[in-house]
Formats: sequence, structure tokens, C-alpha cells
Amino acid sequence: MNPAELCFRTATDLAAAVRRREISAREVVTAHLEQIERANASVNAIVTLVADQALEEAAAADERLASGAEPGPLHGLPVAHKDLHDTAGIRTTYGSPLFADHVPGRDHLVVERLKSAGAITIGKTNVPELGMGSHTVNPVFGATRNPYDLSRSAGGSSGGAGAALACGMQPIADGSDTGGSLRNPASFNNVVGLRPSPGRVPSWPDKAPWGQLSVKGPMARTVADVALTLSVLAGPDPRSPLALETPGSAFTGGLDSDVRGLRVAWSPDLGGGVPVDPEVRDVVRGAVEVFAELGCEVEEACPDLSGADEAFLIQRAWQMELAYGPLLDEHRQHMSPDVVWNIEEGRKLTGPDLGRAQLLQAQLFHRVREFFRTYDLLLLPVNQVAPFDVELAHPASVDGIRMETYLDWMRSAYLITMTGCPALSVPAGFTPAGLPVGVQVVGPHRRDLSVLRAGYAFEQATLVGERRPAVALADGVRP
Amino acid sequence: MNPAELCFRTATDLAAAVRRREISAREVVTAHLEQIERANASVNAIVTLVADQALEEAAAADERLASGAEPGPLHGLPVAHKDLHDTAGIRTTYGSPLFADHVPGRDHLVVERLKSAGAITIGKTNVPELGMGSHTVNPVFGATRNPYDLSRSAGGSSGGAGAALACGMQPIADGSDTGGSLRNPASFNNVVGLRPSPGRVPSWPDKAPWGQLSVKGPMARTVADVALTLSVLAGPDPRSPLALETPGSAFTGGLDSDVRGLRVAWSPDLGGGVPVDPEVRDVVRGAVEVFAELGCEVEEACPDLSGADEAFLIQRAWQMELAYGPLLDEHRQHMSPDVVWNIEEGRKLTGPDLGRAQLLQAQLFHRVREFFRTYDLLLLPVNQVAPFDVELAHPASVDGIRMETYLDWMRSAYLITMTGCPALSVPAGFTPAGLPVGVQVVGPHRRDLSVLRAGYAFEQATLVGERRPAVALADGVRP
Repeated sequence: MNPAELCFRTATDLAAAVRRREISAREVVTAHLEQIERANASVNAIVTLVADQALEEAAAADERLASGAEPGPLHGLPVAHKDLHDTAGIRTTYGSPLFADHVPGRDHLVVERLKSAGAITIGKTNVPELGMGSHTVNPVFGATRNPYDLSRSAGGSSGGAGAALACGMQPIADGSDTGGSLRNPASFNNVVGLRPSPGRVPSWPDKAPWGQLSVKGPMARTVADVALTLSVLAGPDPRSPLALETPGSAFTGGLDSDVRGLRVAWSPDLGGGVPVDPEVRDVVRGAVEVFAELGCEVEEACPDLSGADEAFLIQRAWQMELAYGPLLDEHRQHMSPDVVWNIEEGRKLTGPDLGRAQLLQAQLFHRVREFFRTYDLLLLPVNQVAPFDVELAHPASVDGIRMETYLDWMRSAYLITMTGCPALSVPAGFTPAGLPVGVQVVGPHRRDLSVLRAGYAFEQATLVGERRPAVALADGVRP
Repeated sequence: MNPAELCFRTATDLAAAVRRREISAREVVTAHLEQIERANASVNAIVTLVADQALEEAAAADERLASGAEPGPLHGLPVAHKDLHDTAGIRTTYGSPLFADHVPGRDHLVVERLKSAGAITIGKTNVPELGMGSHTVNPVFGATRNPYDLSRSAGGSSGGAGAALACGMQPIADGSDTGGSLRNPASFNNVVGLRPSPGRVPSWPDKAPWGQLSVKGPMARTVADVALTLSVLAGPDPRSPLALETPGSAFTGGLDSDVRGLRVAWSPDLGGGVPVDPEVRDVVRGAVEVFAELGCEVEEACPDLSGADEAFLIQRAWQMELAYGPLLDEHRQHMSPDVVWNIEEGRKLTGPDLGRAQLLQAQLFHRVREFFRTYDLLLLPVNQVAPFDVELAHPASVDGIRMETYLDWMRSAYLITMTGCPALSVPAGFTPAGLPVGVQVVGPHRRDLSVLRAGYAFEQATLVGERRPAVALADGVRP
């Protein structure tokens, strides 16, 4: 097999080929390192590379397999981890100059699980400073560029992961999501990302271990690969007090399901008031039509999301202060204005503000629960805009409406965060200029498998995700 | 069978007898109504009685059984529900004059589950005003008295439930626990109460559905009956976002287990600094010896509970403000000074205060998790004092140390709340004056079954719970 073609095979296929010893872990890792060599300079997705270590581990993995060891489900697959996730012995910067030389002593739990399943660490993927915002740029490594248009943003905060997947530099990735941090880069990079139910993927270390806002989750180029990665990441761990009890193996079951007759709601603007770029809206509308063609009963409807904005902004600012308040006291001069603003917003909060946020969120939870008694799924835009100018901090306006803060253009994602529902970002199409657009598939509380199945049916019907960025195909590969 | 003897049979036995049609639901309910007639005037545990409705439902339950319907696990058992738990069509006062005539339109989820399992509602059990504090007294119904000494407190906030169980007025009860609200009355009334893991028993309606502080849980006269009730109360419900996924049936398994070799830690004073009455300490020490005699490896040890005080007081005040802040604004003159103080403490909190509470709780969680890698169980006093003068708002001092607030004497319970661990209160013995004392059996995170099994082994070895209060035996019954 052509090494560059190998890099666009699915993780599921690659892992099976390694298991059957049709291909060695060393060949798989080598091919991906070559692809990084080829494409990464253009996009700046992988910001720390541990090539030698990865090759040694691949050789060891091949030996273990040859000696009869039972391979894990990700045996031999290379992964660069999100640079917000600690990696033992490998620089982890969180995109902050304060941590430019920070080398953690132990792995984050998601890294630990991927490695236990046989994945081989090849490096780290870029993030915004301290993970704040949905555009990946920071003072340590600069911006990650969109592989479909290098003048555009790759989104964020899992922007490095999104671009790396799109370019075939890794087959799966670990992301995280507070207000869209893995859904947005999935959409911007024509790949798949699942924001799982809170607790589905346990997190440790974690400064807010009882929080419902921030979750870890899988990203990949196909829904099946996202499910495979989820099967490794999910399941209880004693270090994570909110971890759901269902084991990861629950997600290895078939994704093939009959979607005919599913009651599917969709909304172009989250029930009103959320501006969405008309080009994005058109692509999402096209995706909705595909669900109708697949036999779903589709109608326009959206749960009442009132209060979700206020609850999100309160809880997010609170969490930022909790996580980074001490850092602000010591290092204000090395933190960007957006980061300082976030933390200072958190400092202004009162206990009753947080009480109000909880009440609003509880009301929202119950309204959404009622909504999903009528509907099986909810389809929405992932993003309000297509990938924007990489030089901007955030889009200045959407559909003619001015965005006041760097959070305003992420409402289509963060309002759904507040519902507590699992949400999948699946490639849906392209704008006339060729920029990727995802559709957000939202399901009832904890029905992660339902959104994966719906996303899989849509993916099989459209194959949008198979359109690769030219920058990754410099050698004329046609995968 | 003598009707009064019937009232001291276990719920497990009674339910089996009804199922086998050896006794009718109507006989069971009638016997308990007679027992309420006999004992309740002395203790004031059941504050609302729906005798006619209960008899009608019992008759209907008998008919359903006769017509071949499959009986639920609690078929025909009478239950008076905690007056903090809404009951459709039955007055629910929360112990507050503001709700003296409040009749909810629907059942609380725990009531719903007990009824679905075949239990028959006979009334409501007394609570402190708005459930605040561990002594059951309120302006609507007055105080609940301890059946073992009518001049003493029955504890709280599930004080009515504890006294009603001790007097044979009901075989099982629904309690709740924030800082000891079901463990304390279990201890004061010589019955059993389980504070389950957060999420084990789903709660709805619930003003703080993501909170980890307040839980619902089962109470009964025996550990097996607590497990039976838990099997009905536990398991996921879509209305409760934090509900654990394990079904209630996980708790119907055998409680009989080999405790030999279990590594049991115990502490007379929660690692130091928690004053405990010497008479209580002596009884707990005796309980610890029983565990040693059963073959456990017992040693004195306690996890470092630093920060738990501060985290609890912050989170509790926050939750009180969240739940009752709006009430204070409208009805301050109808709320007691303790209640007003609690809510006002909540109003003084800042966002960063709550952030600090979360960090402290996270550190505590991980220290306790490490502790339980060395030990299987932790034994502690449930209460720092034996039942105190019913006329006091709270004990003025413990072991010579002055109690500044009405929360200070509950630290042995509320510090354990903050660990997130399941904790069982089991009868352990009596003070020289004949007042009941419980031992608190704490297990690792989510190991509810482990604490039930340990408590069962201890109960079988001691049978302390079989000593009935004289007030319930007025007819000379010797159960």
C-alpha cells in the first residue's frame, strides 16, 4: 500500500490490518510521520512531535504482537494528544507561555486509556491559550490553519486535532468540549467529533470533577472510528466521581440501524435568535433533506433554549476562575486579554448567580427531556459560520449581526452544551467556496449510541467526509 | 398473629407473607393503623394520616393479588412518607407554616417508586422546618419525641421516619440526607438508615439536580429491609440527570458475605478534632470490637478530612439560598431565625467561594479514594451525642466543648457527606441511660452494597436493633 494512502484508511481498518499482521505498527507509524512531514508545516496542527519515541514504541508493539500478546483495539495506531491533556514526559503547554516548558509527570486519563488500548503517542495537537475559545491560536505555537483553505481558521479548541485528522496525520484524536471545542473543529475540518454525555468519558486530573460543562470526547474521520475511540475512552474510573457506569464495550456494537420512521426535529437557528450564515444554513438544510430521504419524519422544531445563554456564561466564567484564578494572581502579564477577561468575569460572580444558573439549567433540562418525548433527534448547525479568516480573533459578525464577545459566535454549540445531551458533529457539505460545514446531531440525555447511529446512517448516505484537503494530497494521492 | 407483633416483623417477611396470601394487605395496613393509634400520640412521628385512603388501597391491592396480578416487592406494605417529599393529593408541609395547607399535584419520584412497588401510603412523617437541622421540630406540628425516652429528640431531619420505624408504625421509610438527615435519626431511634452514593436514588422534583450534597435514601429496622427498599428506590430515571445507571435489582442479591479478612479502619473522632460524647464513643468502640471478633483486620485510622468543613458549609448555604431564597424575600416573618440565617449565609457567597469549595472537595475525594485502597471500610460514630433534650434547639456542648451553631454537633455525619461515600447507620448499642447509639459504616465511592453487607454481618452478630422501645409495646407485646 502507498504510505500516503494508508494514512487515509479508517482507524477501524488499520487496527484490523495490524491485528492480522498484514501491516506492522512500525509501518503505520512511519507512514503517519511521513504525512506529518508532508502536511504539517502548512497547517501547524501538531506542535510537539516525539517521532523517535513513537518508532521505538511501534517496534515494541510489533514484538508484543509477534510474541502472541492480545492486541488492544487501537494496537499500533498513532495519536497526537490534545495539548490540554497531560502526557507523561512529553511537553504539555496548554497553549500558554507560562507552560511552554512544562513536562507533566503522568498522563491524563484519556491519554492513559488510548495508550492502554494500544495507541502510540506521536506528539501533541495545538490549542488556544488555556483552551479558551473556538479558534486555535496561542503565543507559544501560533495559529492552526484550515487544511481546506490555509487562510482560514481550523476552529478550536481541538483545532490541532481537527486539522491533523483531516490531513491524515493521525487516524483518531482525543478532544474536549465545553462550548463546542470538539464539535466546532470537526465541522471546520470535515471530520467527526462527539461531545459525549457528561460522565461518559471519565476525566482525571480535573479541577472541576463534578462539572457538567466540560467533557472529553473522541474525534476521527468517520463515525465508526469515533465509536471505536469512544469504546476505549468510555466507562467508569474511580478517579472520576461522575463517571457513568456503562462500560466502553457498549459502543462496539453495530452502528448500522434502521433510521426509517425516526422522528427528527431540525432548526436552522436554534428556535430563533441565533444568527447563522446563509451558506452554512443551506448546507444544513441539505443534510436535513438527506434524513428525510432516509425515511425519517422530519419537521422544523426546537426545544425552548431560554436561559441557556445566561447559565452557560455564568458557569463557564466560574469554571475559568476556579481553574485559572491562582494563575492570574501570579502571572497576569503573561496572559492574554481574553483569558484575563474570562477569569475576571468569574470573580464578579455571587453564590446566588450560580444558584440562578443551576435553576435555569434544571428548567432547560426538563424542557429538553419533554421535547425528546416527541422527537428522537434534533438536527442543527454545528457552527454559525464557515471557517473564518485565520488572522481574526473571532468572526466580527454573523449574517450581518455584530458579535460582541469572542463567545457570541459559538452559541449554536454552547447552547446545546447546556442541555446535557450528547451531540455529534458530522460532515454535511461545503460552502460554494469549498469550506467544510458540519451538521449537529443531538440526541436525548445519555443516548450517545443513538446519535452515533444517526450520524452513521447520514455519513453512509452522503460520504461527504471522504473529500480530502488538497494540502494533504501534495503527492497526488487519491485515497 | 397478634396485630401488634405483626408490626415488628421485617418488611421482607411481611411482603413475602402478603405475596403468599398468608395475610392480606388490609390486615397489614389495619395492624399498622392500630399501632399508630397506640404509639403516635407519645412520639408525634406521623403528622398526617390518610387511614381511609390507605384501607381502600389495601383492599384494592388484595383484589389485584387475588385476580392474579404480579405483586411488586413491597406489595401491601404501609409507608408514611417524609413530609419533605411531595405526595399527590396529600398535604405536604415541609414543616413550614407557609405550606401548612399545601397539597401537591404529583408524587415525588421516591414516593412514586415505593407506590409502584406496591407500598401503600398511610401518611407523612415529621421533619424540621424546611428540613433544616438534625432535630425534628417545626411550627406546624411541633417536635417528634424519641421513643426510647420521650424527653429526648428523635433526631432529624428524617426524625418522624426514624421514630415511626422504631415504634412499628411502618416497616420501611423514605428518608433524605444532606448532613446526616437519615443517618442521625437512624442512630437516635435504633433503626437502620443508608445514605446512598449520590445518584443512586434519583430525585425529582429537585431544585439542585446536579448537587452532590443531598440524597434520598432508605430507612428500616433491619439492614435487609433497607436493601429491599433500596432495590426499589435505586436505578436510573430520565428526570434525574445524575442518576447512576445500575438498576435497583443489583441490591436484591444476598447480603450474606464473608467479612473475615476485611481491612477495617475506625476512628473515634474522625481523625481528631471532632468532639464525641464519651458514652457514644464507648458504644462505637464496642461495635469496632465486634468487627474484630468477626475476623476483620481492625486498626485506628481515618482519611484526612481537612477542608470538608469549609466545603460543606459553603455548599450547604449555597443550596439553601438556591432552594429557599425566593421564599425569604416574600415571607421572612414566617421563617425561623435558623432558616433565615442559612439563606443569608448563602447570599454572602461569591463565585470564587464556591470554586474553593469545589477544589477542597476534589482534594478530599482523592484523599479518601487513596485511603480506600488500603482499607475496605471505615467505622465512625454516626452522632457526636446521644439523643438530647427535646426542648433544646440543639446540644449546647459536646464532651465539654461549646457548639457555636446548630450545625456544629453534626460534623461526624456531614464531614462524611463531603467524601461522596455511601454511609450506613446501624444500631450499635445503648448508653447507660438506655439511649440508642449507631455506628456509621462508610465504604468506598459507590460501593453501597459493600456497606450493606458489612452492616448486615454486624447486625446478625449483635441484634441490637431488636430492642424495642417500651412506648411501642404498651399492650405488653414481646416481639
